[in-house]
Amino acid sequence: MHKFGRFPDKTAIDLGFHACQAALKDGGVEWRDIGAVFCGHAFQGSVVGERIAASFGYTGIPAVNVENACASGSTASLLAYQSVAAGFKDIVLAVGLEKMERGMLDVQQKGTPEMTMGLLPPPAKYALEAQRYMEDYGLTLEQLAKVSVKNHKHGCYNPYSQYQQELTIEEVLKSRMVCDPLTLYQCCPSGDGAAAVVVCTEEIARRLTIANRPLVRVASATLTSQTFVRGEPGDPWDLTVRAAKEAYEKGGIGPEDLDVIELHDCFTMAEIGHYEDFGLCARGEGMRLIDEGATEVGGRIPVNPSGGLLAKGHPIGATGIAQLAELVWQLRGEAGQRQVEGAKVGMAHTMGGASGMACSVTILKR
Amino acid sequence: MHKFGRFPDKTAIDLGFHACQAALKDGGVEWRDIGAVFCGHAFQGSVVGERIAASFGYTGIPAVNVENACASGSTASLLAYQSVAAGFKDIVLAVGLEKMERGMLDVQQKGTPEMTMGLLPPPAKYALEAQRYMEDYGLTLEQLAKVSVKNHKHGCYNPYSQYQQELTIEEVLKSRMVCDPLTLYQCCPSGDGAAAVVVCTEEIARRLTIANRPLVRVASATLTSQTFVRGEPGDPWDLTVRAAKEAYEKGGIGPEDLDVIELHDCFTMAEIGHYEDFGLCARGEGMRLIDEGATEVGGRIPVNPSGGLLAKGHPIGATGIAQLAELVWQLRGEAGQRQVEGAKVGMAHTMGGASGMACSVTILKR
Repeated sequence: MHKFGRFPDKTAIDLGFHACQAALKDGGVEWRDIGAVFCGHAFQGSVVGERIAASFGYTGIPAVNVENACASGSTASLLAYQSVAAGFKDIVLAVGLEKMERGMLDVQQKGTPEMTMGLLPPPAKYALEAQRYMEDYGLTLEQLAKVSVKNHKHGCYNPYSQYQQELTIEEVLKSRMVCDPLTLYQCCPSGDGAAAVVVCTEEIARRLTIANRPLVRVASATLTSQTFVRGEPGDPWDLTVRAAKEAYEKGGIGPEDLDVIELHDCFTMAEIGHYEDFGLCARGEGMRLIDEGATEVGGRIPVNPSGGLLAKGHPIGATGIAQLAELVWQLRGEAGQRQVEGAKVGMAHTMGGASGMACSVTILKR
Repeated sequence: MHKFGRFPDKTAIDLGFHACQAALKDGGVEWRDIGAVFCGHAFQGSVVGERIAASFGYTGIPAVNVENACASGSTASLLAYQSVAAGFKDIVLAVGLEKMERGMLDVQQKGTPEMTMGLLPPPAKYALEAQRYMEDYGLTLEQLAKVSVKNHKHGCYNPYSQYQQELTIEEVLKSRMVCDPLTLYQCCPSGDGAAAVVVCTEEIARRLTIANRPLVRVASATLTSQTFVRGEPGDPWDLTVRAAKEAYEKGGIGPEDLDVIELHDCFTMAEIGHYEDFGLCARGEGMRLIDEGATEVGGRIPVNPSGGLLAKGHPIGATGIAQLAELVWQLRGEAGQRQVEGAKVGMAHTMGGASGMACSVTILKR
């Protein structure tokens, strides 16, 4: 990874190149061994994967540049995984990156129906969902704020996190209101960053892996899109429910098997809803997990030990692959002070598009 | 396909949706049968594939949005092909589209080393190559112009072509100078457009195909990137040579087996150089094929019967898939007045990136 944050002196290519170098070094892989590059980003212009490849020295390998909004990185890693699983390539690189300019999302979404109605997506979407959820299930403002408190605490132990500062419930609730009930510290920050993973066959992984360092396998990887049409009634949570169900089935894994989760906590409300989507608890009971501390590092099923989008940051295209990096470190037992003890199965989850158009779930297994 | 041209009243989504509808209708396929969408474009913003899917009604299928400059469409169709070849999906849709604003490429390439030197890419690159080639091999201005004359003649018979007007050698040479020796009519136009293809397993294709309508198979599909570093010596034609070699080897096909070619004639010089890259003739002899009429419809090996980028137009992301649509029509014998008689093997070729960073070659077989 390249640390998430603000790096005005670095280009998107610099960030991506740094992450790729780190991934190659970590895997003991040479650039010349890489058979293809899959590059995920949302706003960085043309042939970014090729331009990163150029930083290493051209070897003529194919580069595929993919976009899927906040699921861009996950889509790149999915294609990387599929190219190896299908036998097209033995060893490939997936990289996700973003350099965020302030106000970028406003410009991108100008003219969409939501913007025209004055609903600044995505905060508006999650604020509406929070209001509805508070009404339906009695969620409190304090419970919402606790999600941010937890993830900021986790972020303190992650050197790649944009924010490494603890927050109190009061600080979260008293921060500037963005979209009622979501205050500033309940919204993920904007920032720059990059992450990369090497994906290869088991045979190659065995050869590369240093003694006593566990192999990390892809148990399943899915991508899905929503099923309800804008303006018509539908369940906004359905997208993740289906993506998770497919990932569980393909991987032969259930929610009870998960040891650690990195999920798309773009807003505090999202994290609570996704607990339920993943089947960690029944619908309407997500806030109980927060109250019980079940999703803290040290709890029953730690969620976002990296700090999540809320504290680690959310450079759009980098997020999905940063989640995989975190899971790999967790499953190898290399996560330092934020280590989930004995973690063997981890799940990553991203949502892409202001209306939640794409959803990716990946399960990794030690 | 959606016709190439200027369509100020249509959005990029409208164009893509139109092409997808046409492809589904042509294949006798229902939207609900489609297992994934691969969408290629360069400049149309976020989650375009999902937005096209929304026009049909969401079915929850994965959408992957890919960018590779002028090879964006080809990269989308490559991934579509691979997803079926690998057995991940049985039937998928690849769509390429672009809505071009005037001056768009200038903005995109602002700040690149070429622009800083005053070399407006891509015309400058091909103009330099033309100058060098004229010096090395004695290519004449008339021979260069003949490429445009040929492709404009072909375009007259293609209802999807942006231009349907014959040009004389004199008209081509007397048109405004863009970058010496390339005059305006030797440069592909900018425009809007879209194209789509359904890719499926042979079993499904047999079920869908109407009696007496031949199946069209993907013999091979490749994507490669360049091997020389900007500012260092290198062969600018090497990229296509390697992509074609790989496609020939994978498909068990040689240049002598080809009946029809759709290649990336973004400028007249490109077409002559690519004749040689594909092994249709020796290096330095490309202009002979033009003089002999070998690459006209009716000649030995017709090239760009659709009108090519020069006449049909070049809406960036649409081009690669429009080439495949043309080849399918040619191999089925459905190309009307521009039909290459008895065509059984066809090849499509695109280059992406101002410095020719990506190259895709696809061979289709009846």
